[in-house]
Amino acid sequence: MALTERFEIADKTEQNDLQLDRHGRLRHLLTLQGLDRQLITALLDEAETYLSGDGEPVVRGDALAGRTVANLFFEPSTRTRASFDLAGRRLGADVLNLDVNTSSRKKGESILDTIYTLQAMHIDIFVVRDAQNGVPAYIAKHASDHVSILNAGESDVSHPTQGLLDLLTIRLHKGGFEGLTVAIVGDIAHSRVARSAAEGLVTMGVGDLRLISPASLAPEAGSVPPQARIMHDLDEGMRGADVVMALRIQRERITNLEGIPGVDEYFAHFGVSSERMKLAAADAIVMHPGPMNRGIEIESKLADSPCSVITEQVRNGVAVRMAVLASVIRTLGAQ
Amino acid sequence: MALTERFEIADKTEQNDLQLDRHGRLRHLLTLQGLDRQLITALLDEAETYLSGDGEPVVRGDALAGRTVANLFFEPSTRTRASFDLAGRRLGADVLNLDVNTSSRKKGESILDTIYTLQAMHIDIFVVRDAQNGVPAYIAKHASDHVSILNAGESDVSHPTQGLLDLLTIRLHKGGFEGLTVAIVGDIAHSRVARSAAEGLVTMGVGDLRLISPASLAPEAGSVPPQARIMHDLDEGMRGADVVMALRIQRERITNLEGIPGVDEYFAHFGVSSERMKLAAADAIVMHPGPMNRGIEIESKLADSPCSVITEQVRNGVAVRMAVLASVIRTLGAQ
Amino acid sequence: MALTERFEIADKTEQNDLQLDRHGRLRHLLTLQGLDRQLITALLDEAETYLSGDGEPVVRGDALAGRTVANLFFEPSTRTRASFDLAGRRLGADVLNLDVNTSSRKKGESILDTIYTLQAMHIDIFVVRDAQNGVPAYIAKHASDHVSILNAGESDVSHPTQGLLDLLTIRLHKGGFEGLTVAIVGDIAHSRVARSAAEGLVTMGVGDLRLISPASLAPEAGSVPPQARIMHDLDEGMRGADVVMALRIQRERITNLEGIPGVDEYFAHFGVSSERMKLAAADAIVMHPGPMNRGIEIESKLADSPCSVITEQVRNGVAVRMAVLASVIRTLGAQ
Repeated sequence: MALTERFEIADKTEQNDLQLDRHGRLRHLLTLQGLDRQLITALLDEAETYLSGDGEPVVRGDALAGRTVANLFFEPSTRTRASFDLAGRRLGADVLNLDVNTSSRKKGESILDTIYTLQAMHIDIFVVRDAQNGVPAYIAKHASDHVSILNAGESDVSHPTQGLLDLLTIRLHKGGFEGLTVAIVGDIAHSRVARSAAEGLVTMGVGDLRLISPASLAPEAGSVPPQARIMHDLDEGMRGADVVMALRIQRERITNLEGIPGVDEYFAHFGVSSERMKLAAADAIVMHPGPMNRGIEIESKLADSPCSVITEQVRNGVAVRMAVLASVIRTLGAQ
Repeated sequence: MALTERFEIADKTEQNDLQLDRHGRLRHLLTLQGLDRQLITALLDEAETYLSGDGEPVVRGDALAGRTVANLFFEPSTRTRASFDLAGRRLGADVLNLDVNTSSRKKGESILDTIYTLQAMHIDIFVVRDAQNGVPAYIAKHASDHVSILNAGESDVSHPTQGLLDLLTIRLHKGGFEGLTVAIVGDIAHSRVARSAAEGLVTMGVGDLRLISPASLAPEAGSVPPQARIMHDLDEGMRGADVVMALRIQRERITNLEGIPGVDEYFAHFGVSSERMKLAAADAIVMHPGPMNRGIEIESKLADSPCSVITEQVRNGVAVRMAVLASVIRTLGAQ
Repeated sequence: MALTERFEIADKTEQNDLQLDRHGRLRHLLTLQGLDRQLITALLDEAETYLSGDGEPVVRGDALAGRTVANLFFEPSTRTRASFDLAGRRLGADVLNLDVNTSSRKKGESILDTIYTLQAMHIDIFVVRDAQNGVPAYIAKHASDHVSILNAGESDVSHPTQGLLDLLTIRLHKGGFEGLTVAIVGDIAHSRVARSAAEGLVTMGVGDLRLISPASLAPEAGSVPPQARIMHDLDEGMRGADVVMALRIQRERITNLEGIPGVDEYFAHFGVSSERMKLAAADAIVMHPGPMNRGIEIESKLADSPCSVITEQVRNGVAVRMAVLASVIRTLGAQ
């Protein structure tokens, strides 16, 4: 049954065996762990070809003509679902949006049976979001040879297309990654965004990666790349940073933080503010994966200031997802 | 935060400054107030070109090819959402249906951040329904120069595409508006439908506009055009009318009406019936915005009779929305 | 009002008068009762042309180009809704997915008014699922001459496209129906799947049709074709069967069964298992309409074994629905 189904957790090696074919091409996208610099660079390069300016016509293509993409979101989402939906349609796919909570799961069908059913309808790509660790790899392992699985958010563990759009945004502003100082700030412990960004940044050769959080929200040992520096002082963490990424924090998490009795105190200690940006590099950019809690993890004024690239991240997200969709379809076609 | 966000209410002049560009072209559609006869006539003329008969092929076009329309409904809706959805698709747009209640608002994101996020995905037109007064104008004021906002129902205040479809329906049956007597009947106080129809009818030069309601459901002073006559006796109001428009009443409102203890009494006093239609002009038409409470605000038999144009209103609604979508896209393209 | 609306139940003759035009062509699809062998064969033949193998491109067509299909599901569904959605889109239709529970019905609109509203938007085909007996025929009787109604699941009574996909699956594996022994197992009393399969199989001339259930879940007299044998012993029922179809049982039904205190006992008595398949023909196939309760009505291992054709049923479902959609559109076009 869905609620009691157990997913063996694939380890890093096994996930890469799953997500790359024997020629090293992207077969599924489960995690950024283990994707090499060349493959990520190729994805970012392709994503750039899908970008267009505000008010310009969107870039369209036919790489997915005749293909069907299913958005299978076991957690609610507006932005990521919409982003994949538009990415698929702009490449010519039929996109099926399935709200699985309200139907099959109620009836007690297992996740795999849902997948077996849908793949029998000739769905080529499943975009999966789930609150449980291990689901995308589990599905990839058991799905047909003719389908591809894309992880659109997996528990606290991984959000690889978010990681890619963060990389693209940084590359567009900074030209590359070498020598860069990147500060990721907030609830690192529970953030799939932080984890995927960290994995991607380390692969791309970032200079100094700082993960800054209250002590009780620091990442568990082994859950982030060893190259990352775990820090607890935001002023210190932001000093000289080229990129500052504020993470969303859930309000209920704040109430349990030692020495931080409320949101105002959280902002005082861990809020990314204009004042603190003076510590960063003069041309530093500010990022946030959204949705923002203005005034809690990020100062509202700063989010709307010229150094903020938050809406660019969203724009880049569609382009990155187009690149990923097109890549896995090419791999499927080459089998 | 969404729940506590305050929207400054744009006044009439400001709304028109927003919804028309400097050449007087339709840039957003926020309200019928202040749209002049020429602009409304042009919209109705274009809408007529999108009409086709029952069983005939629908009229399609490519005015929105490559464009993306987002239906952003903060209140549930079947008919208006479906109408905009079909209107957009029949003009070649990609249409994104977003049920915002179940996701972003739960996460506490502000309306503007939702808009900023979606416009970054290259959405060209936002179709917005909201229970709060002022939301469409607020969004139009803050959105990017490259997007257009269409009001698909705003609190009790305004429902401009409904007003336009009512105008088109009347014009198709009566040839024009001059000298016409129009009776709008029911819960005027809470009806955005009545308000938009009244505004449109006055602009188009209707002869005698009567707003008929129980005393406690009469419109507040200043909330309807001064040309409208406020009346409380339905027999008197329907006498000689060329057009009778019954409004939907919410059942819970009836229980609070003085001297009207239940739905039967409401029907007896304010129900539009075949019997009462004998007081109207011989060729009078009956309208209703739907969904109907048959037997409460309108006699069931009358709703299905030859003088009823209720389903024509729905058909005209798609055509009017196609005209509005095409118009704002032309305006965007001409910036 | 929706909740108290009464639907006269059309009898078999009346349903056929509704679903076939005067030339005997398919006008609506309400039930398999009364469709003759020739018509069903033609549908299956056409469905076969829409089949393609795993990993091959899907078959597409333009039979529904310019047409609009509305999925009007008053009961939740993932698989059937997705199947009709893809079938329509792969033939070029615009498909509108309407979740009616959350909107119009809340507002108290009658089903017919919902239909009248939507058909005024130039919807050509309504795909209707409803928990109440009689709804599809009721709608077909009152809808416009220009629309077609397809039953996508009606109470316990009928699920004709499921019946057709079951027939197609059997024909593809067994070559035909004559002389075949088919065992349908489980909660026959409440199964629209069993009823439609039984009706179709009898029309197609199946040799021996067995409906096997606990005594209290046997079909009511007259609710299944008289040719069917009502049985209560699964070993006896499966002996020599060419086709074994396990039905989904709702867990709450099991608790009321005499002598069957729980799901384990249900499986022991009425579960279709590998062990029991030894009683069936050597080349017997196993079917299930989904979603499965593995370990209750069907052994999990058996569902994944080579004799299982469960995912083929799903694949065939899309093809059958394409054939039905194309057929009724041809009939509409020939009026």
